[in-house]
Amino acid sequence: MTKIQIRNLIITVGVGLVLYLIPAPGDLKPQAWHLFGLTVAIILGFILEPLPIGAVAFVGITIVALTGTLKTADVLTGFASTSMWLIVAAFMFARAFLKTGFGRRIAYVILRAIGGSTLTVGYSLALSDLVISPATPSSMARAGGILFPIARSICSVLGSEPETTPRKAGAYIMQVVYQTEGIVCAMFMTAMAGNPMIVELASKTAGIEISWGMWFLAALLPGAVAMACTPLLLYKICPPELKKTPEVKALAAEELKKMGPMSRDERILAGVFVLVLVLWTTGQWTKLDATVVGMLAACILLLTKVLDWSEMLTEKGAWDIFIWMGSLVALAGQLQKVGFISWFADVVSSSISGLPWLWALILLVVVYMYSHYGFASLTAHISAMYAAFVAVAISAGAPPYLTCLALAYTANICLAITHYSGSPGPMYFGAGYMPLSAWWRVGFIFSVFNLIVWVGIGSLWWKILGLW
Amino acid sequence: MTKIQIRNLIITVGVGLVLYLIPAPGDLKPQAWHLFGLTVAIILGFILEPLPIGAVAFVGITIVALTGTLKTADVLTGFASTSMWLIVAAFMFARAFLKTGFGRRIAYVILRAIGGSTLTVGYSLALSDLVISPATPSSMARAGGILFPIARSICSVLGSEPETTPRKAGAYIMQVVYQTEGIVCAMFMTAMAGNPMIVELASKTAGIEISWGMWFLAALLPGAVAMACTPLLLYKICPPELKKTPEVKALAAEELKKMGPMSRDERILAGVFVLVLVLWTTGQWTKLDATVVGMLAACILLLTKVLDWSEMLTEKGAWDIFIWMGSLVALAGQLQKVGFISWFADVVSSSISGLPWLWALILLVVVYMYSHYGFASLTAHISAMYAAFVAVAISAGAPPYLTCLALAYTANICLAITHYSGSPGPMYFGAGYMPLSAWWRVGFIFSVFNLIVWVGIGSLWWKILGLW
Repeated sequence: MTKIQIRNLIITVGVGLVLYLIPAPGDLKPQAWHLFGLTVAIILGFILEPLPIGAVAFVGITIVALTGTLKTADVLTGFASTSMWLIVAAFMFARAFLKTGFGRRIAYVILRAIGGSTLTVGYSLALSDLVISPATPSSMARAGGILFPIARSICSVLGSEPETTPRKAGAYIMQVVYQTEGIVCAMFMTAMAGNPMIVELASKTAGIEISWGMWFLAALLPGAVAMACTPLLLYKICPPELKKTPEVKALAAEELKKMGPMSRDERILAGVFVLVLVLWTTGQWTKLDATVVGMLAACILLLTKVLDWSEMLTEKGAWDIFIWMGSLVALAGQLQKVGFISWFADVVSSSISGLPWLWALILLVVVYMYSHYGFASLTAHISAMYAAFVAVAISAGAPPYLTCLALAYTANICLAITHYSGSPGPMYFGAGYMPLSAWWRVGFIFSVFNLIVWVGIGSLWWKILGLW
Repeated sequence: MTKIQIRNLIITVGVGLVLYLIPAPGDLKPQAWHLFGLTVAIILGFILEPLPIGAVAFVGITIVALTGTLKTADVLTGFASTSMWLIVAAFMFARAFLKTGFGRRIAYVILRAIGGSTLTVGYSLALSDLVISPATPSSMARAGGILFPIARSICSVLGSEPETTPRKAGAYIMQVVYQTEGIVCAMFMTAMAGNPMIVELASKTAGIEISWGMWFLAALLPGAVAMACTPLLLYKICPPELKKTPEVKALAAEELKKMGPMSRDERILAGVFVLVLVLWTTGQWTKLDATVVGMLAACILLLTKVLDWSEMLTEKGAWDIFIWMGSLVALAGQLQKVGFISWFADVVSSSISGLPWLWALILLVVVYMYSHYGFASLTAHISAMYAAFVAVAISAGAPPYLTCLALAYTANICLAITHYSGSPGPMYFGAGYMPLSAWWRVGFIFSVFNLIVWVGIGSLWWKILGLW
């Protein structure tokens, strides 16, 4: 280990130890407090990286089990979660895109059409996500099965590789797809799995009905502003070294000619691609969840030998994400189970009572946003906090529609705050184009930007719409 | 795919389809019948290998979920099971044995002492297992953490590698440790995790008390016969090409001299080895389960850089076993949950009523033994069938102690029947020294041998002891 790694290890262990040893505040169970302390230390370890993050997670859950904070079986629950296996399947899918050349072909087609600059490429990827999102409620399926393989292929075609030339185009492109993903989730009630739950909770807690159309109308102005600004803003914040690419269109056309007609494997992959797209968009009728569709895609690729089994087993990146994200999913789920989350919501609620409603609402929105540093899933966060926060704001006197919508969109735009904040994160971050510290910095900048656009501009827009 | 692979794929799919389509017998729920049919097809796929077994398992659970036989989340439950993560941890441990040279050193020490022939090596490994077993109730921990790394190192030292020279010594040695493992489990009440459950079930169902001493005394004669014969019998059935190795003792001594003193990494590994041995044997007091101890070992190796994280991720064999064994563990657990197992036990019970007790008991023992083809865990099998079978035999008039003991030992010796029949199997089979068909053949031969020894000779021995 280097000196810095040892220093970071000491800091991580030290913070964990201190949090573990100080007594649980208020009436919180010691078990819940210990779990919180160890989870904070693990997340700190993700940032400081005294070991690779997969190893940090593995050591972390071992300590959680060794100290008896959780049973061994409980720290492993994340490895059976459907979203983890969708990630594994998506990795296989992306591997096939790379191996067959199909990803390169799609990238060339896009670049031939709009390859004039890195900026236009960024916009076109964001728009592609938007177009399929109303009918594909799994953001992970969109990211892992569709956008990530294409974005990754475009980076390679533009000559940007994670080890040698990350800033040429890759860092920019990965951030564009990631930051716009949260916006796209917020745009439609059917663009993210947890949104229908928000609608239900809003109805139960605040007694208001949000239709598909109202959700979309309310999101239209802030969504349009955010979508229009994000690729441009990123262009300033993490500028790609490759800017104008006038020769790329001609090059792409030439390369496509060189590639010739599609190979057998490419045609199979294209068929599978269309199939999963159809199955993902028709999921609400066929009742096939996104994970089983992703696994089916991997099965077809295996049976047709487009992919070998040994290629699946050596897909190092998939297993790395599997371990660290799976660990975090388990810890986040258990934090809820042992009562930490409800205790936290209560503390926020009681400390806010007495404030004027506007300040109470602003504070609640901000707390909701940044408490997402402790979550690995939008849906888990919603089920833990949405209803409680809506109830507190309304009891402080905030208008119901304003409250429900502000918290609903906040529950989506917090997607891009860290690399583990939702299932698409590990994919884009895992591509390796950007160090963790930069990833978090950009995530924080856009959390502020999105709060201003969605809650600031949004609340004015909803006033004009007559919603409050 | 080769022609044979395509033929085997058609057979596997065909059997699955036929079983799926014929109506469920009797009052069995269609879901339970479908799950049984698909599980049979998956196990058939393991034998015929139209694809590598990991891929068969992956495709299999995808089909189980696609057909709606189980929910997607249910087919994934095996991946969070503690025994799967003990296997992953054990693989890392074995990797460290290989990498540091510590495994080679231990192997040389053993060979210097008793390396006169492959047969003596076989016996000494079997005895090592026996010595630590009374205090190490996790057969997986013994196999994965202790015996497997040493056995694997001895094979390499004897010049037997899975790809090129499997029959030189490796196939023989792996089978010796595997086949004697089941015998060792049966010897002591504390040598296998499910045995205390047997004692409890025997007390509840038949009203008899089996003490630690009685268990051992009843096992003493059949156990001694089985332990004495197994390495010799295997020597005939799968003879190692390397037999007498007179030069090996001298060679080992010379190699040990060449290796010099232990390196830093070896010393750390030796320390970890002693630590886990202590923690595994004191588990009943410290309440640390075998999995968390295994994970702790992997953590120490990671933190001290004896192993790199990337080495853990590229441990292909671990992920392969993880997927196929994890799939099977989930399916076996769900077969119980949907009521197939209890239905099966009922069918056996009712078809046996009316038989003389001796024939009823023999039939029950044989059915118990071979129904283990459908199980991935001794403990799961015990919890599913032990009590029911004891009850049926006793109601047919069989003496309680004879019944309880015969089924108790059968519940242990069925360990080595397939490569997935318990958690040590995937390790030894996964080393790759023997093709699947040969593995199953040897497993079947020893199932017959063990039945004769344990139930045949055993019942006479228990008569002499005055137990019935």
